[in-house]
Amino acid sequence: MSRLDSFIRRMKAQRACLDWAAQAIADLPGPVFELGLGNGRTYDHLREILPGRDIYVFEQVIKAHPNCIPPDDRLFLGDAVEQLPIARDRLGEGAALVHTDLGTGDDAANRRLAARLAAPLAGALRPGGIVLANIEIPVDRWTRLPEPEGVQKDRYFIYRDDG
Amino acid sequence: MSRLDSFIRRMKAQRACLDWAAQAIADLPGPVFELGLGNGRTYDHLREILPGRDIYVFEQVIKAHPNCIPPDDRLFLGDAVEQLPIARDRLGEGAALVHTDLGTGDDAANRRLAARLAAPLAGALRPGGIVLANIEIPVDRWTRLPEPEGVQKDRYFIYRDDG
Repeated sequence: MSRLDSFIRRMKAQRACLDWAAQAIADLPGPVFELGLGNGRTYDHLREILPGRDIYVFEQVIKAHPNCIPPDDRLFLGDAVEQLPIARDRLGEGAALVHTDLGTGDDAANRRLAARLAAPLAGALRPGGIVLANIEIPVDRWTRLPEPEGVQKDRYFIYRDDG
Repeated sequence: MSRLDSFIRRMKAQRACLDWAAQAIADLPGPVFELGLGNGRTYDHLREILPGRDIYVFEQVIKAHPNCIPPDDRLFLGDAVEQLPIARDRLGEGAALVHTDLGTGDDAANRRLAARLAAPLAGALRPGGIVLANIEIPVDRWTRLPEPEGVQKDRYFIYRDDG
């Protein structure tokens, strides 16, 4: 399998997980948090599959396509670890879905990131809420859910707050 | 269709065109030229689908994944417009396939690029050779071929040197 094959498989897996998550929160109120805007492709996808849902983006520096930049009042600029509690307080409610695509190919860095993100993420999620992450994020009261059909195991990590 | 959907479709179209081209040159000797290494994903794919074929890469600055960087003697560093005639002379034969992924989202810049590339590309291709390009490159003696099944029209431009 070439890197092109692998890349296409990863993008399709990401889309399958996002589509699954949109269905999973259909009956759960609350905003959606996108951690890491990047080029804005998954933000654009979330906008499309979750019309009418408030989507807030957490990013350090905006580098997305101009059509994929959220309005200023939907943007939390800075370190997500610091911004998540600020967002939770300002919005007055927890997120129904958090999608985080912040991990990189560096396993040790991913573990450090997961350790920093776990508590702020757990605090920002409402009961029954879903986390879709490209890295493993261990939180005691979260249940890890199986990947949707067709998605390679451990390509994404899906959790539900059952606390 | 979200930008994520559109991106996946583009990557799949690119792979379908590369796979088609590999079949199309099965009985034609000669090297393969990859114009623009980028992250190296299509180079890796070409290596995989064309085992035993010499693949030469043209790039200004190498930024690819370490596993996707060609050996020094398969690399032409600099402006492809200048390097293509040098490659043609050094190798002593024309390419069976040229894949060029140099275009951007800027139509005017793409037309200027196509105008600069047309003659050096035409000179570097052997009779019967195939050009797969992400921009339109008009050359009199080339015939534009239809896209493979499932590929959106004008997503890629496929030419054969029938001169």
